[in-house]
Amino acid sequence: MYKNSGGRVPVSDEVLKSNESFYRAFNDKDFAAMAGVWSSSQDISCIHPGWNVLEGRDSVLESWRTILSNPSQPRIVFGGATVNVLGMVAVVVCRELVAGSPLAATNVFVSEGGVWKLVHHQSGPVYASQST
Amino acid sequence: MYKNSGGRVPVSDEVLKSNESFYRAFNDKDFAAMAGVWSSSQDISCIHPGWNVLEGRDSVLESWRTILSNPSQPRIVFGGATVNVLGMVAVVVCRELVAGSPLAATNVFVSEGGVWKLVHHQSGPVYASQST
Repeated sequence: MYKNSGGRVPVSDEVLKSNESFYRAFNDKDFAAMAGVWSSSQDISCIHPGWNVLEGRDSVLESWRTILSNPSQPRIVFGGATVNVLGMVAVVVCRELVAGSPLAATNVFVSEGGVWKLVHHQSGPVYASQST
Repeated sequence: MYKNSGGRVPVSDEVLKSNESFYRAFNDKDFAAMAGVWSSSQDISCIHPGWNVLEGRDSVLESWRTILSNPSQPRIVFGGATVNVLGMVAVVVCRELVAGSPLAATNVFVSEGGVWKLVHHQSGPVYASQST
Protein backbone atom coordinates (compact mmCIF):
# COMPACT_ATOMS: atom_id res chain seq x y z
CA MET A 1 0.00 0.00 0.00
CA TYR A 2 0.94 3.61 -0.38
CA LYS A 3 2.60 2.49 -3.56
CA ASN A 4 0.72 4.94 -5.66
CA SER A 5 2.63 7.64 -7.46
CA GLY A 6 1.79 10.23 -4.83
CA GLY A 7 -0.03 12.29 -7.42
CA ARG A 8 3.03 12.59 -9.58
CA VAL A 9 2.24 13.48 -13.19
CA PRO A 10 3.14 10.66 -15.63
CA VAL A 11 6.18 11.42 -17.73
CA SER A 12 4.20 11.27 -20.96
CA ASP A 13 1.83 13.95 -19.60
CA GLU A 14 4.80 16.18 -18.80
CA VAL A 15 5.99 15.78 -22.39
CA LEU A 16 2.54 16.55 -23.75
CA LYS A 17 2.47 19.72 -21.66
CA SER A 18 5.70 20.87 -23.28
CA ASN A 19 4.28 19.92 -26.67
CA GLU A 20 1.22 22.07 -25.93
CA SER A 21 3.49 24.94 -24.87
CA PHE A 22 5.12 24.81 -28.28
CA TYR A 23 1.80 25.21 -30.10
CA ARG A 24 0.60 27.84 -27.62
CA ALA A 25 3.71 29.94 -28.24
CA PHE A 26 3.05 29.55 -31.97
CA ASN A 27 -0.57 30.70 -31.71
CA ASP A 28 0.21 33.50 -29.28
CA LYS A 29 2.98 34.62 -31.66
CA ASP A 30 5.05 34.84 -28.49
CA PHE A 31 8.68 34.68 -29.55
CA ALA A 32 10.04 34.72 -25.98
CA ALA A 33 7.81 31.78 -25.07
CA MET A 34 8.89 29.96 -28.25
CA ALA A 35 12.56 30.55 -27.41
CA GLY A 36 11.89 29.12 -23.95
CA VAL A 37 10.22 26.01 -25.33
CA TRP A 38 13.42 25.07 -27.17
CA SER A 39 16.53 23.66 -25.53
CA SER A 40 19.23 26.22 -24.83
CA SER A 41 21.70 23.87 -26.55
CA GLN A 42 23.15 24.82 -29.91
CA ASP A 43 22.37 21.28 -31.08
CA ILE A 44 18.80 21.93 -32.14
CA SER A 45 17.28 21.59 -35.58
CA CYS A 46 14.05 22.39 -37.34
CA ILE A 47 12.42 21.49 -40.66
CA HIS A 48 9.46 23.75 -41.41
CA PRO A 49 6.99 22.57 -44.08
CA GLY A 50 8.70 22.94 -47.44
CA TRP A 51 11.90 24.32 -45.94
CA ASN A 52 15.36 22.87 -45.90
CA VAL A 53 16.95 21.71 -42.66
CA LEU A 54 17.80 24.48 -40.18
CA GLU A 55 20.49 23.67 -37.63
CA GLY A 56 21.77 25.56 -34.60
CA ARG A 57 19.87 27.69 -32.14
CA ASP A 58 20.51 30.94 -34.00
CA SER A 59 19.11 29.68 -37.31
CA VAL A 60 16.16 27.93 -35.71
CA LEU A 61 15.12 30.88 -33.54
CA GLU A 62 15.60 33.32 -36.41
CA SER A 63 13.13 31.26 -38.45
CA TRP A 64 10.60 31.42 -35.62
CA ARG A 65 11.10 35.15 -35.25
CA THR A 66 10.23 35.52 -38.94
CA ILE A 67 7.21 33.20 -38.77
CA LEU A 68 5.78 34.64 -35.55
CA SER A 69 6.22 38.23 -36.72
CA ASN A 70 4.26 37.55 -39.93
CA PRO A 71 0.84 39.20 -39.42
CA SER A 72 -0.76 36.88 -41.97
CA GLN A 73 0.57 33.68 -40.34
CA PRO A 74 -2.54 31.55 -39.63
CA ARG A 75 -3.09 29.80 -36.31
CA ILE A 76 -2.22 26.13 -35.95
CA VAL A 77 -4.42 23.40 -34.51
CA PHE A 78 -2.77 20.20 -33.39
CA GLY A 79 -4.21 16.86 -32.37
CA GLY A 80 -3.64 13.13 -32.08
CA ALA A 81 -0.36 13.58 -30.22
CA THR A 82 1.31 10.40 -29.05
CA VAL A 83 4.47 10.20 -26.96
CA ASN A 84 7.29 7.69 -27.05
CA VAL A 85 9.48 8.18 -23.97
CA LEU A 86 13.01 6.82 -24.44
CA GLY A 87 14.76 7.64 -21.18
CA MET A 88 15.65 11.31 -21.17
CA VAL A 89 14.35 11.78 -24.72
CA ALA A 90 10.75 11.79 -25.90
CA VAL A 91 9.44 11.65 -29.46
CA VAL A 92 6.01 13.17 -30.08
CA VAL A 93 4.17 12.65 -33.34
CA CYS A 94 1.00 14.58 -34.03
CA ARG A 95 -1.20 16.08 -36.68
CA GLU A 96 -1.43 19.76 -37.44
CA LEU A 97 -3.97 21.85 -39.31
CA VAL A 98 -2.96 25.25 -40.68
CA ALA A 99 -5.55 27.25 -42.63
CA GLY A 100 -7.36 24.03 -43.48
CA SER A 101 -4.23 22.27 -44.71
CA PRO A 102 -3.31 19.03 -42.89
CA LEU A 103 0.27 18.43 -41.81
CA ALA A 104 2.06 15.73 -39.82
CA ALA A 105 4.75 16.59 -37.31
CA THR A 106 7.61 15.22 -35.24
CA ASN A 107 8.67 16.95 -32.02
CA VAL A 108 11.69 15.60 -30.13
CA PHE A 109 12.12 16.68 -26.51
CA VAL A 110 14.97 16.22 -24.03
CA SER A 111 14.59 16.39 -20.28
CA GLU A 112 16.72 19.28 -19.00
CA GLY A 113 16.59 19.92 -15.27
CA GLY A 114 13.20 18.28 -15.04
CA VAL A 115 11.71 20.22 -17.95
CA TRP A 116 11.11 18.74 -21.41
CA LYS A 117 12.75 21.03 -23.94
CA LEU A 118 12.38 20.84 -27.70
CA VAL A 119 15.51 19.86 -29.65
CA HIS A 120 13.98 19.05 -33.03
CA HIS A 121 10.80 19.80 -34.96
CA GLN A 122 9.70 18.69 -38.40
CA SER A 123 6.37 19.38 -40.01
CA GLY A 124 5.34 18.36 -43.50
CA PRO A 125 2.18 18.47 -45.61
CA VAL A 126 -0.27 15.58 -45.75
CA TYR A 127 -1.63 15.25 -49.27
CA ALA A 128 -5.39 15.07 -49.54
CA SER A 129 -5.37 11.61 -51.06
CA GLN A 130 -3.56 10.30 -47.98
CA SER A 131 -5.43 12.24 -45.33
CA THR A 132 -8.64 10.24 -45.41
CA MET B 1 49.47 9.11 -23.06
CA TYR B 2 47.66 6.11 -24.39
CA LYS B 3 44.54 8.12 -23.86
CA ASN B 4 43.33 7.62 -27.37
CA SER B 5 40.08 5.81 -27.96
CA GLY B 6 41.81 2.55 -28.82
CA GLY B 7 40.41 2.70 -32.31
CA ARG B 8 36.84 2.68 -31.10
CA VAL B 9 34.41 4.11 -33.63
CA PRO B 10 32.85 7.39 -32.44
CA VAL B 11 29.20 7.07 -31.47
CA SER B 12 28.09 9.49 -34.17
CA ASP B 13 29.79 7.32 -36.81
CA GLU B 14 27.92 4.27 -35.51
CA VAL B 15 24.66 6.20 -35.86
CA LEU B 16 25.57 7.32 -39.39
CA LYS B 17 26.24 3.69 -40.31
CA SER B 18 22.74 2.75 -39.21
CA ASN B 19 21.40 5.73 -41.12
CA GLU B 20 23.21 4.49 -44.23
CA SER B 21 21.78 1.02 -43.69
CA PHE B 22 18.30 2.51 -43.81
CA TYR B 23 18.89 4.13 -47.20
CA ARG B 24 20.71 1.06 -48.52
CA ALA B 25 17.74 -1.16 -47.62
CA PHE B 26 15.52 1.36 -49.41
CA ASN B 27 17.61 1.35 -52.59
CA ASP B 28 18.10 -2.42 -52.55
CA LYS B 29 14.32 -2.78 -52.09
CA ASP B 30 15.31 -5.27 -49.40
CA PHE B 31 12.36 -5.60 -47.08
CA ALA B 32 14.13 -7.96 -44.66
CA ALA B 33 17.00 -5.50 -44.32
CA MET B 34 14.53 -2.64 -43.82
CA ALA B 35 12.71 -4.60 -41.10
CA GLY B 36 16.08 -5.18 -39.42
CA VAL B 37 16.98 -1.48 -39.50
CA TRP B 38 13.93 -0.66 -37.39
CA SER B 39 13.62 -1.31 -33.69
CA SER B 40 11.75 -4.49 -32.80
CA SER B 41 9.64 -2.40 -30.41
CA GLN B 42 6.00 -1.74 -31.22
CA ASP B 43 6.63 1.93 -30.35
CA ILE B 44 7.87 2.99 -33.76
CA SER B 45 6.37 5.57 -36.07
CA CYS B 46 6.84 6.83 -39.61
CA ILE B 47 5.66 9.80 -41.65
CA HIS B 48 6.27 9.26 -45.37
CA PRO B 49 6.17 12.34 -47.62
CA GLY B 50 2.53 13.40 -47.91
CA TRP B 51 1.28 10.58 -45.71
CA ASN B 52 -0.41 10.71 -42.36
CA VAL B 53 1.34 9.41 -39.26
CA LEU B 54 1.84 5.65 -39.12
CA GLU B 55 2.29 4.13 -35.68
CA GLY B 56 3.20 0.64 -34.53
CA ARG B 57 5.56 -1.86 -36.10
CA ASP B 58 2.87 -3.59 -38.15
CA SER B 59 1.67 -0.39 -39.83
CA VAL B 60 5.15 0.96 -40.40
CA LEU B 61 6.55 -2.25 -41.89
CA GLU B 62 3.45 -2.77 -44.03
CA SER B 63 4.05 0.66 -45.55
CA TRP B 64 7.64 -0.27 -46.34
CA ARG B 65 6.55 -3.57 -47.87
CA THR B 66 4.25 -1.60 -50.19
CA ILE B 67 6.90 1.00 -51.07
CA LEU B 68 9.74 -1.49 -51.62
CA SER B 69 7.60 -3.80 -53.74
CA ASN B 70 6.64 -0.97 -56.09
CA PRO B 71 8.65 -1.57 -59.28
CA SER B 72 8.41 2.12 -60.23
CA GLN B 73 9.73 3.37 -56.86
CA PRO B 74 12.76 5.54 -57.69
CA ARG B 75 16.03 5.28 -55.81
CA ILE B 76 16.81 7.73 -53.03
CA VAL B 77 20.00 9.73 -52.57
CA PHE B 78 20.73 11.17 -49.16
CA GLY B 79 23.30 13.68 -47.99
CA GLY B 80 24.23 16.28 -45.43
CA ALA B 81 23.45 13.99 -42.52
CA THR B 82 24.18 15.40 -39.07
CA VAL B 83 23.83 13.51 -35.81
CA ASN B 84 22.75 14.75 -32.40
CA VAL B 85 23.52 12.06 -29.81
CA LEU B 86 21.38 12.39 -26.67
CA GLY B 87 22.46 9.49 -24.50
CA MET B 88 20.87 6.32 -25.84
CA VAL B 89 18.94 8.24 -28.49
CA ALA B 90 20.29 9.91 -31.62
CA VAL B 91 18.52 12.33 -33.95
CA VAL B 92 19.75 12.43 -37.54
CA VAL B 93 18.62 15.13 -39.94
CA CYS B 94 19.52 14.89 -43.60
CA ARG B 95 18.50 15.78 -47.11
CA GLU B 96 17.03 13.34 -49.58
CA LEU B 97 16.63 13.43 -53.34
CA VAL B 98 14.04 11.20 -55.00
CA ALA B 99 13.62 11.43 -58.78
CA GLY B 100 15.03 14.95 -58.70
CA SER B 101 12.69 16.12 -55.94
CA PRO B 102 14.39 17.41 -52.78
CA LEU B 103 13.16 16.30 -49.37
CA ALA B 104 14.29 16.83 -45.79
CA ALA B 105 14.23 14.02 -43.27
CA THR B 106 14.38 13.16 -39.59
CA ASN B 107 15.61 9.75 -38.44
CA VAL B 108 15.52 8.93 -34.72
CA PHE B 109 17.61 5.99 -33.53
CA VAL B 110 17.80 4.19 -30.17
CA SER B 111 20.75 2.11 -29.02
CA GLU B 112 19.55 -1.45 -28.51
CA GLY B 113 22.19 -3.94 -27.44
CA GLY B 114 24.92 -1.81 -28.95
CA VAL B 115 23.14 -1.34 -32.28
CA TRP B 116 21.39 1.87 -33.32
CA LYS B 117 17.87 0.99 -34.38
CA LEU B 118 15.39 3.27 -36.09
CA VAL B 119 12.31 4.21 -34.03
CA HIS B 120 11.00 7.13 -36.09
CA HIS B 121 11.33 8.49 -39.63
CA GLN B 122 9.79 11.55 -41.22
CA SER B 123 10.45 12.82 -44.70
CA GLY B 124 8.81 15.82 -46.30
CA PRO B 125 9.17 17.78 -49.53
CA VAL B 126 11.39 20.84 -49.81
CA TYR B 127 9.74 23.40 -52.04
CA ALA B 128 11.93 24.77 -54.80
CA SER B 129 11.77 28.33 -53.52
CA GLN B 130 13.29 27.18 -50.24
CA SER B 131 15.83 24.74 -51.58
CA THR B 132 18.32 27.25 -52.85
